[in-house]
Amino acid sequence: MKVLVAGGAGFIGSNLIDALLQEGHRVVCIDNYFIGKTSNLVHLKNNLDFTLYEQDICNLDALSDIFEKENFDFVFHLAANSDIQASAANPLVEYKNTYTTTFNLLECMRRHEVKKLFFASTSAVYGEKNGINLSEETTPLSPISYYGAAKLGSEALISAFSYMNHLSSLVFRFPNVIGPRLTHGVIFDFINKLKNNPGELVILGNGEQTKPYMHVSDLINGILSFKGKISEGVSLYNIGVESQTNVKRIADIVCDGMGLSPVHYSFTGGIGGWRGDVPLFAYNLDKIHNAGWYASMSSDEAVMRTVREVLDCKP
Amino acid sequence: MKVLVAGGAGFIGSNLIDALLQEGHRVVCIDNYFIGKTSNLVHLKNNLDFTLYEQDICNLDALSDIFEKENFDFVFHLAANSDIQASAANPLVEYKNTYTTTFNLLECMRRHEVKKLFFASTSAVYGEKNGINLSEETTPLSPISYYGAAKLGSEALISAFSYMNHLSSLVFRFPNVIGPRLTHGVIFDFINKLKNNPGELVILGNGEQTKPYMHVSDLINGILSFKGKISEGVSLYNIGVESQTNVKRIADIVCDGMGLSPVHYSFTGGIGGWRGDVPLFAYNLDKIHNAGWYASMSSDEAVMRTVREVLDCKP
Repeated sequence: MKVLVAGGAGFIGSNLIDALLQEGHRVVCIDNYFIGKTSNLVHLKNNLDFTLYEQDICNLDALSDIFEKENFDFVFHLAANSDIQASAANPLVEYKNTYTTTFNLLECMRRHEVKKLFFASTSAVYGEKNGINLSEETTPLSPISYYGAAKLGSEALISAFSYMNHLSSLVFRFPNVIGPRLTHGVIFDFINKLKNNPGELVILGNGEQTKPYMHVSDLINGILSFKGKISEGVSLYNIGVESQTNVKRIADIVCDGMGLSPVHYSFTGGIGGWRGDVPLFAYNLDKIHNAGWYASMSSDEAVMRTVREVLDCKP
Repeated sequence: MKVLVAGGAGFIGSNLIDALLQEGHRVVCIDNYFIGKTSNLVHLKNNLDFTLYEQDICNLDALSDIFEKENFDFVFHLAANSDIQASAANPLVEYKNTYTTTFNLLECMRRHEVKKLFFASTSAVYGEKNGINLSEETTPLSPISYYGAAKLGSEALISAFSYMNHLSSLVFRFPNVIGPRLTHGVIFDFINKLKNNPGELVILGNGEQTKPYMHVSDLINGILSFKGKISEGVSLYNIGVESQTNVKRIADIVCDGMGLSPVHYSFTGGIGGWRGDVPLFAYNLDKIHNAGWYASMSSDEAVMRTVREVLDCKP
């Protein structure tokens, strides 16, 4: 089939494009390079099944022209700001790059009668729910970051557009996703800090922030497994791993991977890394497990593999 | 205090302005007259405590200038598209008039350090939940209209902005609200249809759509009672009446009020009036009742009073 990957030059989008091409689909990518990088797609330059548009999805008319021309069977929507810390200082980034991209893609699907959607949502829609096992249908949604708010707003749009236009939509709420082509987040930060100063590492918060980390290859596997099975309406799942890794353990794995020892850790203190950070969370994964899907790597294994991949990558 | 009523020229906004002035506050209204009417505010022309800006809230720079100049203590946000049927054909209306107005008001509150907010949300955030007693914390939110989606997206923004900027926000999910200055909806439609053709009434759906109708004076009473009691974070309540009125009963009350008999009813059929209409719903009002607040009128009483008010109003 012919698919659109919106935000395909980003970390997760570019990994998804590789997998979709591998499966034999024709792939069109739209990206504005706000976070995405040309280097993530350079290896596809001569691939005849791949088409690339440099276009801001916030421009509805331009987007509609692409839909008119390309006639998609499936839209994979991964276009968003993904740097929560950056948008904390400027919420407009989320209004444009996370919410408006969703609205415009759905509006183009409506106008051009594209019926299938995958949407990359996030654990951040739940907000701070310390100690609660977050489940899709029963946990109240109260985001504490502008990013989480724009993603929840996007889920709301998908609910209404799916109903009104008979779409089949697959929504995954992602945990922290890591792997090759990572552009930010704690592993990326630690490696950069230690490259600059191998003897000392400043850790935001108290180092006890504990989250599940999922390797991007497991996430892509999940998307590909479910994409053919969805029916009319919204199919929504938490996707992730049962296990978790705390920030201090990540620091140890990074130092180990870089062969650094001893490294002195200092902590900025407080329970969250920054305002809008969710220091501790646990997903309820019963729904996706009951549908027959499990991640292949634990959180620690995903962190270890990612550290190796990021260190092996030529800049 | 000095308050902003955004969307103050509308049906509910203008009733709220009257009540706030009555309480002795200075009131600034911003409206673009998309749905609001100059006639709703004409009686305030010479009121020195009242200031009116004709301005589209979607223009962030212009809005920010007003915030800079006026220095508000409290923002009452009632600026939205309120005609679900109209936006079903053009979702952009909700993107602009319902969601973007919320984002821009919150962004101005953030920039200008206004800490108190009232937001008019809606039962439409729940979506179609036949037979389920809709409660604030445990009912999944899956809007089926673009209007409901934009309102849920707005609630998500309020959650994040309140957390990030220490706002105290009061959110009421409204049922159908009726009363003087009503501009659309079933009562308004029936009266207009019967004025054109007093012998026959075409009713959308099967006439069994059953909803709670609340009189605007009860709603305003609720807003005024809670506005002084809110603390940091989001206080969210369903507001409404326990009783309900079905569409056929509304037709009977309207015909009776207009002194028409016999009127022949015909039905377009189907369980909802139009796609995106929620044919049947019941609110759980325990939370607001436990906080000590009850509506003074039943749903039928609200319908009867509104029919009289609309008929008595000079065009």
